[in-house]
Formats: sequence, structure tokens, C-alpha cells
Amino acid sequence: MELWYTENQNDDLRFSCRVTRTLHVEKTPFQHLAVLETPCFGRVLVLDGIVQTTVWDEFMYHEMIAHVPLNTHPRPEKVLIIGGGDGGTAREVVRHPKVKSAVMVEIDERVIAVSRQYLPELSQGLDDPKLELRIEDGIEYVTKHPGEYDVILIDSPDPIGPAKGLFGRQFYEGVAAALKEDGLFVAQTESPLFNADLIAEIYRNLREIFPIVRLYLTYVPTYPGGMWSFTLASKKYDPLEVKPEDIPPLSYRYYNAEIHRAAFALPQFLQEILRRA
Amino acid sequence: MELWYTENQNDDLRFSCRVTRTLHVEKTPFQHLAVLETPCFGRVLVLDGIVQTTVWDEFMYHEMIAHVPLNTHPRPEKVLIIGGGDGGTAREVVRHPKVKSAVMVEIDERVIAVSRQYLPELSQGLDDPKLELRIEDGIEYVTKHPGEYDVILIDSPDPIGPAKGLFGRQFYEGVAAALKEDGLFVAQTESPLFNADLIAEIYRNLREIFPIVRLYLTYVPTYPGGMWSFTLASKKYDPLEVKPEDIPPLSYRYYNAEIHRAAFALPQFLQEILRRA
Repeated sequence: MELWYTENQNDDLRFSCRVTRTLHVEKTPFQHLAVLETPCFGRVLVLDGIVQTTVWDEFMYHEMIAHVPLNTHPRPEKVLIIGGGDGGTAREVVRHPKVKSAVMVEIDERVIAVSRQYLPELSQGLDDPKLELRIEDGIEYVTKHPGEYDVILIDSPDPIGPAKGLFGRQFYEGVAAALKEDGLFVAQTESPLFNADLIAEIYRNLREIFPIVRLYLTYVPTYPGGMWSFTLASKKYDPLEVKPEDIPPLSYRYYNAEIHRAAFALPQFLQEILRRA
Repeated sequence: MELWYTENQNDDLRFSCRVTRTLHVEKTPFQHLAVLETPCFGRVLVLDGIVQTTVWDEFMYHEMIAHVPLNTHPRPEKVLIIGGGDGGTAREVVRHPKVKSAVMVEIDERVIAVSRQYLPELSQGLDDPKLELRIEDGIEYVTKHPGEYDVILIDSPDPIGPAKGLFGRQFYEGVAAALKEDGLFVAQTESPLFNADLIAEIYRNLREIFPIVRLYLTYVPTYPGGMWSFTLASKKYDPLEVKPEDIPPLSYRYYNAEIHRAAFALPQFLQEILRRA
């Protein structure tokens, strides 16, 4: 018997990988959740029919969502993670030497439980004593914690279902209020190739709230097109002013001082999208 | 009726896109050749069942294979293109203001003819008076033209079938001999994710022939994993010493001065592959 996972990236585009075994499938109160074992990518976490992360390429996404903002802030002591139920972002945050405490707010406790069971490479950071886990709505959480955080990371799925509000202007105003007066935040902001309008809208909204807004890119081979964007918005510190000596010598697989800088070099077509935003 | 193109990227991984119309299919003396009309990518050129280029994302590949080496050389007056039958690389070469003449050596004249007919966006450069087209084997051509070229571009398909020799040490020695004493060349060198051994072997071979060897990356969404590599080998000029003012102000869609520099920033895992090479 041949078993294949097929993802409809849009109506006209599909991505399929062979499946060795279906490790877990359930319908949580928030979404459809599955973990597959595959020969190409190792274990794969799928939410609502979309690959969230794979053991094979998760390091590219998780190192880039965490270390770029953490190293932009000179004292990233108190960190908030919204979403990120698989634990990959938390793993990167807690190993940063300057981070003293982190709160992770995930709406769906089943993602955490399943990740603990099947994805230990990602979920290992969830038991770190620096980390406090809270099962609640991130949108509500930020409104109740004004002025508390140095760095906030928004590690959300695509802007459909429960994550839709995490891409809206009102949420970003809440995030700005939850940051200290020199705080900064980053959000995963989808594909520049397939979601250019969304990226432009987010950029426009954030430019009205924060003095410094910069987009950066990373390769994520299992996401549509392989090119993925993050948007960093900051009250004071500029990610382009980070020096190689500001970067702690951790063992990285993707990130390094040159990549930190290079990630902000945008292709001409994307510069033009932002110029028109 | 639904029509889909499916590419087996490897035994366990497939990529499919809807097809509106099959514009052309033939078996040439060298390979299977097709042009498909698709809603996602516009027209797609397929050789031996592998996407070579699409009207949607070809600019990323063609601007990066051409302008990075051309701008690294202070006088890229005489240029040789090996392969590149679709015409996209030639289009970028002939519009560079410092290029005085270019020779393009393609082994399969059917690729050129079909590209002229169905892919005018790519093949438009093939009629430029600066360009001389030759239908012959690039491997033989270089051995007959010692010391002639400033810049050589190897725009080949994957290293199977007629293109296999274009990735070998003997060919690279021929290329070195065909370059002037301050010449440089670039080759497309496949995916760092799926072809790391090949990249390491090419790097090792070129380091024994050229004093300067550097890998750089670009996004190509329709290639496996979306991350693609080029290897630049040079007798004298270093691509990292190019200054923004060295770059002619053409209208680019991907390339610009920041991208030129950023493309050479390699993820940690790839730096380690090259260090062990």
C-alpha cells in the first residue's frame, strides 16, 4: 500500500510526500491536528491540512523567528511567545543566554500535548524552568499585560480560523501596549510570492504604530514556494545595527551573523511591494 | 477534465500543478521536451520530466546567474553561455551595458526553436545583435577556444543525460583554460538541501583550479525546496568586493546591490558542508 500526504497549496498547486505511518489524527476544539511519519521530512505536524513544521527543516523557521529579534534587543530578558504550540520557538528562546523568563500563550493545549508526545526535538524546550506555559487566547492575553515585555514573538499558523485575529491592526496595537517602552516584536507574515497583499497591509498598519518596521526572509522548503517572511516592528532598536559581537556563540544550524544581516536584503519585487504599501 | 503536471522530485516527494493546455511535446535527439500552460506559473518549460523554468519565477534564476558574475568582472566584454536554450540567461547578458559580444552554445536546437515559439519573454534576447548562437556541445567548444572569455556562464539542467559532463572536473579545467587570465565563471550547482554531496565535490574540484571560489544562493520557488545554489570561480576578482556603484542601474525584478552581497551569506549548515568539502 502506498500512503501519500497531499496539500493543496492553492486551487492549482499541490505538494505531496510519501507517508510511512500516520502517528496521530484528531479534531481538537480549534482545528484538525495530525502527525505523520515521512521518509523525506521525518515527522510532520499538520494543522487543518497545512504543514506547520517538519523535523527536517524546522530549524530554519525557528532559529530565524527567535534569534533575529532576540539579538536586536540588547536585554531581551522578558519574552512572550504567542502560538508556537510545537515548542520549536520556545526551544530557541530559552537557550538564549540573555533571556531570564518567557511566557508562551497557546490557545490549543492539544498541539502542545501531541508535540510533547511525537516531536521531542521541538517540544524539549517546553519543560525549561525559564518557561511558563499558559493555555489561553493570545489576543486577550496581551490586553491584560501592558508594558511587560522586552520581546514578543508571534508564531501563528496561516490567517484563517483561530489565527485570523493575530494578523489584524487591533492585535498589533495590543502587542505594542504589552511591550516596554524600548520593546520590539516579530510575527511570521506568510509568503511574499502568494500573500503579497497581506504583507503590504501588515507593513502599512505597523508603520503607523512603530517607528522601525523591517521585513526579513528565510528559506522554509516545506512552505509554498520556499520563501517565507517575518515582519519585525520595534520601538527603539534597529535589527540592521546588530554587530557580529552582539550574537551569542550558540550552536546554530541556519542562523549566523551574516545571515542576520542578509535576511533583510529584499528582492527588488518585494521592495516595490513595500514601497507601494 | 482536469489536467495536472506531476513531477517526482524524488521517490518520496511530488509537486503538481494544474495544466490549462499542453502547448508542445516532442522527443528531441537529446531529451523529452514540453511546454505547458498553467494557471499558477504561466508557461512552463519541462525537460525530461523536470521543470526547467517558468514565466512566473524565471527572473529570480536568470538575473542571479547573469548579473552576479557580470558585475564581479570590471570589464565583462566577451561572454560565453553554455546551455540556457530557453534564452533567459542570454536576455540578461545582452542587456548588460558592458557586454560587447556573447556566444551561446546550446547542444539542442529544438529547445531554442520551441522557446522562440512559446516563451517570447525568455527568448527575446536570442535575436540581439550582440549574441552569436552556436548549436554544438559546450564541452567540446571550450577546449577549442583557449584564453578567449572574460565571463563564462554554465546554465545547465540537472547532472543527468547530456548535462552530466558539465559538472565534472575535466570540464571545469576546460572552462578555466577558455577564460582570460583575469576571467571568472559561474555554474548553477543544484540544491543545497537535496544535492549537498555534489555541491561539496564541485567546490573541492574548483578550489584546486581557481584561487577564488564562492557559493551563492537564490530562491527559485519551482525548484525542489525553493533554495538554489550557484558556484562562482574566479582567477582574480572577488564578488564580495563589488560596490553598489559598480552595479548598472538596469530595471531588475530580483537582483539589486543588497541582494548581490546577501546571496553570499550562507546558512550555518551549508558553511559546514563547504568546510568539510
